[in-house]
Amino acid sequence: MTSLYGMPSLPPVRPVDRTLESVLRARIDGKAKPPGSLGRIEDLAIRLGMIWHPAEPRAGKSVLLVFAGDHGLTQEGVSQYPSEVTAAMVRTFLAGRATANAFAAAVGVDIRVVDIGVAADLPDHRDLVAAKIRRGTGNAAREPAMSAAEAGAALKRGGDLAIEAIRGGTEIIAIGEMGIGNTASAALLLHRLAPAALDVCIGLGAGQDDAGLARKRAALERAASRSDVTAPFDVLCEFGGLEIAGMAGAVIGAASEHRPVIIDGFISSAAALTAIRLCPAARDYCIFAHRSSERGHAILLDALEAMPLLDLSLRLGEGTGAVLAVPLVRAAARLLTDVATLDDVLSGQI
Amino acid sequence: MTSLYGMPSLPPVRPVDRTLESVLRARIDGKAKPPGSLGRIEDLAIRLGMIWHPAEPRAGKSVLLVFAGDHGLTQEGVSQYPSEVTAAMVRTFLAGRATANAFAAAVGVDIRVVDIGVAADLPDHRDLVAAKIRRGTGNAAREPAMSAAEAGAALKRGGDLAIEAIRGGTEIIAIGEMGIGNTASAALLLHRLAPAALDVCIGLGAGQDDAGLARKRAALERAASRSDVTAPFDVLCEFGGLEIAGMAGAVIGAASEHRPVIIDGFISSAAALTAIRLCPAARDYCIFAHRSSERGHAILLDALEAMPLLDLSLRLGEGTGAVLAVPLVRAAARLLTDVATLDDVLSGQI
Repeated sequence: MTSLYGMPSLPPVRPVDRTLESVLRARIDGKAKPPGSLGRIEDLAIRLGMIWHPAEPRAGKSVLLVFAGDHGLTQEGVSQYPSEVTAAMVRTFLAGRATANAFAAAVGVDIRVVDIGVAADLPDHRDLVAAKIRRGTGNAAREPAMSAAEAGAALKRGGDLAIEAIRGGTEIIAIGEMGIGNTASAALLLHRLAPAALDVCIGLGAGQDDAGLARKRAALERAASRSDVTAPFDVLCEFGGLEIAGMAGAVIGAASEHRPVIIDGFISSAAALTAIRLCPAARDYCIFAHRSSERGHAILLDALEAMPLLDLSLRLGEGTGAVLAVPLVRAAARLLTDVATLDDVLSGQI
Repeated sequence: MTSLYGMPSLPPVRPVDRTLESVLRARIDGKAKPPGSLGRIEDLAIRLGMIWHPAEPRAGKSVLLVFAGDHGLTQEGVSQYPSEVTAAMVRTFLAGRATANAFAAAVGVDIRVVDIGVAADLPDHRDLVAAKIRRGTGNAAREPAMSAAEAGAALKRGGDLAIEAIRGGTEIIAIGEMGIGNTASAALLLHRLAPAALDVCIGLGAGQDDAGLARKRAALERAASRSDVTAPFDVLCEFGGLEIAGMAGAVIGAASEHRPVIIDGFISSAAALTAIRLCPAARDYCIFAHRSSERGHAILLDALEAMPLLDLSLRLGEGTGAVLAVPLVRAAARLLTDVATLDDVLSGQI
């Protein structure tokens, strides 16, 4: 495959050591409970054990990185909401009044909002990372969404944020997004990177009537026919978005630091797909939070052989589903580190 | 239906006011998010709103009540574990080293262990409620598990514990259990109260080989053929167990205080079924945490038209699944109370 855009510089990621799986399974089978009785939490504990090896997994301090960016594709009417809603919702995050804030408070997760491409000026705020690469992407139906330099910078900025958070003591990175029009970009990425027929990748996003969905389909068909790229970085440059590039960078950054990254819904998963196509070893570090009701998500999860933890018919984004999966990750880590062995219990040592 | 055992005294439970549903739905639709985009969390928020009405829901301080009791049915070889494991696991809870402790610590839930019928002496401990009614139930394959006085006392004690916790500021009650042999009792309750054919109510419990499962089936057939009672309190007395009666009491107690109660897996659900058959209005206050992989649980959930929040192939009990659902309940409450309206966002008031 030829590349128009070259290959970005990425931090190195080491796959987990799968020979540890049987060791960890045996350790969990020795806990004071019937073997296998914690189902998918056991599988998650094994994954965390492999990720953190040789250290013991910890899953206390957690941060949700919400990447925000606008999309030139909105000029084609792909969303029923105007681009201005992106900035309005960023202000809502900063005021602590969005759903992601409410869920993060409920669960005990910190939030940082990353302006990586909002098409508006935003106020200084302690929870806002000013990382604007440009004011929204190009309109991918007519032109590339980003240059290689822009996409590379967004990837790098996302990666650096994850790496800095982890080096500062964060034990779980969760990713989420805000960007009117971004189910359109995500559909194009899924189409080209799964790959899958474009039609089945397109869904209702934040909500569309029949006319709106027809506009969205037509715009995405124009975008897809404009460029036949298939190399993952090329696809990212052509179709965007800035917040998706930032999230893909965060996935690779967390993986490079041997820490788990919790993936939210359809758009976050498209970012994870991009990251994994750029850097296949990053797959080992991705924990898929939930099965979104956005149409293309099932195809995307199948492409990654991912089985999410939750199935609650969520389709909001913002990282809301990722936050709700954090307690499951915390519980799985503590299964490995905190629970007595059956031998301890039966020998009367407890 | 005639009753052998009479009817226990129960606190009154008022059903929720279902006319509030449309009001709460409209309120959630007015939040700063696409309508319906939080799926089952929206439904849960509506339920919490109805339960707490006229107050706003809160879901911070949470306690898991783990009811522990032994079963005379173990004399028939219904479990591969000896009864002594019940007391050993209670000691493990008190040492903070069981899975329920680990998960509760991960999520931020307090635990109280209730000795309502363990067949052993247990030490004094600040986390242990000494509420022993008797040292294990009678062997239901040969005799009633409990007298009416014993079952009534267990119901009352469970209810009082939930009521005291709520009056002390607890906002969520979760129930769980420890009792070797209790999937056998739960299968009998399900069989008689759903009702459902006995065979499909019997599963592997903590784990059984073919010979063990055959012993369990034979013992439960003897128990079922010994008594044809169908009135819910009679069924509870005949088939046990003490911890199931305690949990049923806690369900009714929480409901009588207009507070939600989170139900764990198969055995906890059998307790909820018993509570609901005794007091149908209690159904409105029950939140079913997860779909257990124990065979009869799907039938039990169908009998109650319950759709659990999680599906993680758990089958441990102890309240582990109930604890994992607490963050979802907390998030749902905060959706109602913390999230801005779309009008606030679009009018620039944020």
